[in-house]
Amino acid sequence: MPKIILVASFDCVVFGATGDLTLRKLLPALYYRFLDGQMPGDSRIIAAARSDLTDESYRERAAKALHRHVAAVDLQEAAVDRFCERLSYIRVDGTTDRGWDTLGAVLSEMPERVRVFYLATSPELYGPISAHIGRFGLVTPQSRVVLEKPIGHDLASARAINDQVGEVFTEAQTFRIDHYLGKETVQNLLALRFANSIFERLWNTDVIDHVQITVAETVGVEGRAGYYDSSGALRDMVQNHLLQLLCLLAMEPPISLDADAVRDEKLKVLRSLRPIEPHEAGARMVRGQYTQGAVDGQPVLGYMHDLGTAEPSRTETFVALKAEVRTWRWANVPFYLRTGKRLPQKVSEIVIQYRALPFSIFPADGTDLQPNRLIIRLQPEEGMRLEMMTKEPGPGGLRLRRTGLDISFEKAFGTRYADAYERLLMDTVRGNTTLFMRRDEVEAAWAWVEPLIEAWSSSSDLPRPYAAGSWGPTASIAMIARDGRTWHEELG
Amino acid sequence: MPKIILVASFDCVVFGATGDLTLRKLLPALYYRFLDGQMPGDSRIIAAARSDLTDESYRERAAKALHRHVAAVDLQEAAVDRFCERLSYIRVDGTTDRGWDTLGAVLSEMPERVRVFYLATSPELYGPISAHIGRFGLVTPQSRVVLEKPIGHDLASARAINDQVGEVFTEAQTFRIDHYLGKETVQNLLALRFANSIFERLWNTDVIDHVQITVAETVGVEGRAGYYDSSGALRDMVQNHLLQLLCLLAMEPPISLDADAVRDEKLKVLRSLRPIEPHEAGARMVRGQYTQGAVDGQPVLGYMHDLGTAEPSRTETFVALKAEVRTWRWANVPFYLRTGKRLPQKVSEIVIQYRALPFSIFPADGTDLQPNRLIIRLQPEEGMRLEMMTKEPGPGGLRLRRTGLDISFEKAFGTRYADAYERLLMDTVRGNTTLFMRRDEVEAAWAWVEPLIEAWSSSSDLPRPYAAGSWGPTASIAMIARDGRTWHEELG
Repeated sequence: MPKIILVASFDCVVFGATGDLTLRKLLPALYYRFLDGQMPGDSRIIAAARSDLTDESYRERAAKALHRHVAAVDLQEAAVDRFCERLSYIRVDGTTDRGWDTLGAVLSEMPERVRVFYLATSPELYGPISAHIGRFGLVTPQSRVVLEKPIGHDLASARAINDQVGEVFTEAQTFRIDHYLGKETVQNLLALRFANSIFERLWNTDVIDHVQITVAETVGVEGRAGYYDSSGALRDMVQNHLLQLLCLLAMEPPISLDADAVRDEKLKVLRSLRPIEPHEAGARMVRGQYTQGAVDGQPVLGYMHDLGTAEPSRTETFVALKAEVRTWRWANVPFYLRTGKRLPQKVSEIVIQYRALPFSIFPADGTDLQPNRLIIRLQPEEGMRLEMMTKEPGPGGLRLRRTGLDISFEKAFGTRYADAYERLLMDTVRGNTTLFMRRDEVEAAWAWVEPLIEAWSSSSDLPRPYAAGSWGPTASIAMIARDGRTWHEELG
Repeated sequence: MPKIILVASFDCVVFGATGDLTLRKLLPALYYRFLDGQMPGDSRIIAAARSDLTDESYRERAAKALHRHVAAVDLQEAAVDRFCERLSYIRVDGTTDRGWDTLGAVLSEMPERVRVFYLATSPELYGPISAHIGRFGLVTPQSRVVLEKPIGHDLASARAINDQVGEVFTEAQTFRIDHYLGKETVQNLLALRFANSIFERLWNTDVIDHVQITVAETVGVEGRAGYYDSSGALRDMVQNHLLQLLCLLAMEPPISLDADAVRDEKLKVLRSLRPIEPHEAGARMVRGQYTQGAVDGQPVLGYMHDLGTAEPSRTETFVALKAEVRTWRWANVPFYLRTGKRLPQKVSEIVIQYRALPFSIFPADGTDLQPNRLIIRLQPEEGMRLEMMTKEPGPGGLRLRRTGLDISFEKAFGTRYADAYERLLMDTVRGNTTLFMRRDEVEAAWAWVEPLIEAWSSSSDLPRPYAAGSWGPTASIAMIARDGRTWHEELG
């Protein structure tokens, strides 16, 4: 059994409490932590939003959300009731003074305890909300602020947000969440690399041919079309999730697991990324936009239809990139990244492709000697697979076949896998910033991505079309094929 | 599906045709090859022994043996009948001239085809039978002789047998069988090491702390007590099976998979074994003999009782050894070998224990950072397991737990695993000696083992007693513990 780390009572103020993220992710995560006894005695969840609700009507909404997003087996009516008793609702406006006095009065009842301000709102409100928190004197030494992605839409806006928040909260109080970092498998990357001598010995250019990071979604833009069209896959996924995965894969061993030791190493990776010059963008990056097609056997419409405008959109719903980390360890090891919507499978995975055998003593008669691969699945089922060649069974000659050593973490441990938000929320309460992005990381990531956005903005090209349900534009396949490699697509 | 390699029609003469090995192993193996279409048209199995039997009565005996030793699912009555039609019986005496003319007449009907003489007899008969084969002119260019272990009981007797057989058969015609080499997993060692760049990179003293080879049996000596008491575990198991496994693990990459290329490398390993001087034998070798105890919850008697003599026997039923391979690759990497009867589990496995982490960044609070281990199971279920540390799931801190990447070959390939004899018999027919021991190998193995036998003979110590159902004498545990290591015993 995992050991329970006890925490003291805390207050958690959730701004954007009526929003999708709160109802779908934060309340279920808090409920699970409550079930596990991680929300002691009189801890409070203070829901804040602009809607005109009462404690009662918000609790009803919360209970409904729990019934929808928590597994039935974990829904005990009495527990839901007790959990909802921890909830109160305050009508607060992030851009005006409305409600702040009330919020201040409630918080001041418990001045000593850990106080989490969770900003589950649009990023434009991060500055104004922080300013109000400061102006109404709500920041205590035990206060923290949690910021959801995206932190801005480019380097300048990210800096502006960080400046505004930084006027009220110190860096140590600021928790920039990337929920990918809360996934078990992502944390397992640290264990894989630094608790297993054999893997770290195989973690460099001598042994590794290249790395692939794929985050594929089957969904389209659905209700988020407006936001999405102003963002696109590069901003929405690459700048944060994919680059964070790349950092954990590529970083040098930190001197300890302390938050700043880990983040210092991740920052070094971001700063080592070879800039992609505007004239190279065409060869090293492919953008796509889905057109009508079929996903899971169901016909689906194209992005332009989902967006509902007649004007063609230049926003990419798919991006593939060839990144390079300029260090001794990673010279000549490309990192191929790709992410997109309306792809054939919902899958996130990392593929470490090792170099081919230096020499084969096996007969060439049809034996296809495949290089070893380590496949780390983040979803749907978190696990690992080490692909290797083994003897084909049978009394014939020594023929080889590719097979794999497997582990499915959920099966291996026989336990429910906590959602990333559960882990990250508790890290916030405990004040552990290891799995959160430091200001300089966010800005370094923007600094690398921005020239790509600019190269794109200054051209008049439209994204390459790809049929929904395909693996993106053929140019993505061509990009990696030019290097003599292929995307890993025996997925699922 | 494994590709079928077609062979031409052949004749197989089995000496010792009424013996346990023939009935329990060879006939079932030949039957399976027959089922798979690997015994073309008019191939013949000529059973030879001293008993007074007819074709009919031998076929009955053979059919009975098949019903006992072949899986029911593979027993088709028509197939058994057709297989038995291939069998004939000739009464032949290996030490007199009786029957040899008859055998010669039968064989001379098919002078061109592959002719296998399988000597499933006591080793004292290898010389006399070979001499008769020669004297009666039965050796053709397409003839082979198969010798079962043990080839002698020491270096001198092994040389004598090899000399006698060598007067009749060339070395290329001589197939010294070690059925361990026919096991799928043993052949998979070649694939593991030489078809997977990542493992061969980790296959040396920089990375590996030590190697363990365990061949444990639950059975006692049963009907073989007479033979066994003149042999013992060192001669019966270590000199052949365990040293052969050690050779495949420790050898340098051969320049090809040709028989002599592989055997040259194995021979180098045997010649690199550090001799154990008589005065060291006590510290580097432990011999044991089982006393009464319990296996699988059933009470069993001791070796002395199984032997049925009043005189104490000095024969070991258990041996543990610390071997060293004096090469660049294996300096400071002990190979611990052990084998015994009446141990708690029937299991054969190889454990590659990698070196500990050079440095840990993980908190010391109870996290037991175990070094990686690669466990190769030869039986009961052939497979591999790569043990590693992974994150303990849950939203607490980064706690580690040992788990493993697994493969069970039989499950992975969803196919019946051929018995070692099937493979080796067909290799004999095909004339492929790769998985058979060359004369110099057998003799080098005896040369290493002999001083251990001598050291033992010249002392008056009795083997250390161990209770049946235990892992051997405590001195075996102490031997490895003195090096700060432990036997791998989370078996089964």
